[in-house]
Amino acid sequence: MPITRIDLSATRSAADRLAIAEGVRRALQEAIGIPSDDRFLIITPHDPADLLFDREYAGVRREDIVYIQVILVGGRPQELKLDLYRRIVANLTEAGVRPDDVYIVLTENDLDDWSVGRGRAQLVDQGTVPGRRAES
Amino acid sequence: MPITRIDLSATRSAADRLAIAEGVRRALQEAIGIPSDDRFLIITPHDPADLLFDREYAGVRREDIVYIQVILVGGRPQELKLDLYRRIVANLTEAGVRPDDVYIVLTENDLDDWSVGRGRAQLVDQGTVPGRRAES
Amino acid sequence: MPITRIDLSATRSAADRLAIAEGVRRALQEAIGIPSDDRFLIITPHDPADLLFDREYAGVRREDIVYIQVILVGGRPQELKLDLYRRIVANLTEAGVRPDDVYIVLTENDLDDWSVGRGRAQLVDQGTVPGRRAES
Repeated sequence: MPITRIDLSATRSAADRLAIAEGVRRALQEAIGIPSDDRFLIITPHDPADLLFDREYAGVRREDIVYIQVILVGGRPQELKLDLYRRIVANLTEAGVRPDDVYIVLTENDLDDWSVGRGRAQLVDQGTVPGRRAES
Repeated sequence: MPITRIDLSATRSAADRLAIAEGVRRALQEAIGIPSDDRFLIITPHDPADLLFDREYAGVRREDIVYIQVILVGGRPQELKLDLYRRIVANLTEAGVRPDDVYIVLTENDLDDWSVGRGRAQLVDQGTVPGRRAES
Repeated sequence: MPITRIDLSATRSAADRLAIAEGVRRALQEAIGIPSDDRFLIITPHDPADLLFDREYAGVRREDIVYIQVILVGGRPQELKLDLYRRIVANLTEAGVRPDDVYIVLTENDLDDWSVGRGRAQLVDQGTVPGRRAES
């Protein structure tokens, strides 16, 4: 039940925005095993003047940044996160985003921090999530 | 000093949006003991095309999702969180939101992660927050 | 690589919004040692009706709140956070924001939670971040 916030320029079309969101969703499935119907993403288009970024920080050449914040349950091993970044960039390239323009940040929480409908805590009942280390 | 982000469709009226925010605030008071004047919420209305969700994931029937993210100090026992989810859904039902459309995610942080005015760290001075386990 | 979300009233001008963002960025540099080109901020202007806040909570007199959420790597000592709050407020005062209107919340994560371009995890390679305790 990751939830993803995507903040980008309003100059990107509705079709491109949808393709970007679908690219992130698919990467979560490919890298971490999130089910395809676990699809929850919030897109916020911004006036370019409100979307600030450095064009060269960390040796990257940014032109039109796409900010992606994924909130997800903690406990996934690092190699899954690294694979997630690569797959998001690969999928977003297909959606017309330059690899240098993809900025990703993860925020982790716990199983009891989610209620995806009806006021129930579905992950507490379920007891685990895909890709999580057994010892977590 | 929870802060709550509410992302919903711009088709919901200003009055409905306010009632939704008040329902979340009241649930925080009822479930966790947050004071009634500890009221900080950010509503972001979206074009429905930018608010993506699966209609049936986890056995829920979503039609017009309301995303609620609460950032709060960690250390509350699980039963308070579960009660919070139930009360948010109950209160939002009164505000005209279907129980299946309520999606909640919590993100926790610590006492020294808050400054609610004047550059002071009010919770560090205060030393605790309502509903927190004594041992935390 | 902190990323900062700034939510404020759309009645604040584009020039004021930019000055606010620059004030936060500069405070991150002054208090924590974030490099000046590590500059990533998302501004979201809101209809005042969608930006809810209590006018007097915690002994502060709010009139036109500016919500600032900074997501950053954990492990900075508390005194750096407290200094950050003071410097944000000082810088935002220069940008025309009343000290009582500055609301700050931090969310921490880890080194492997960041990819700032090209799908690489730059902080994993780097191994640390400015201002972090050696033992972290």
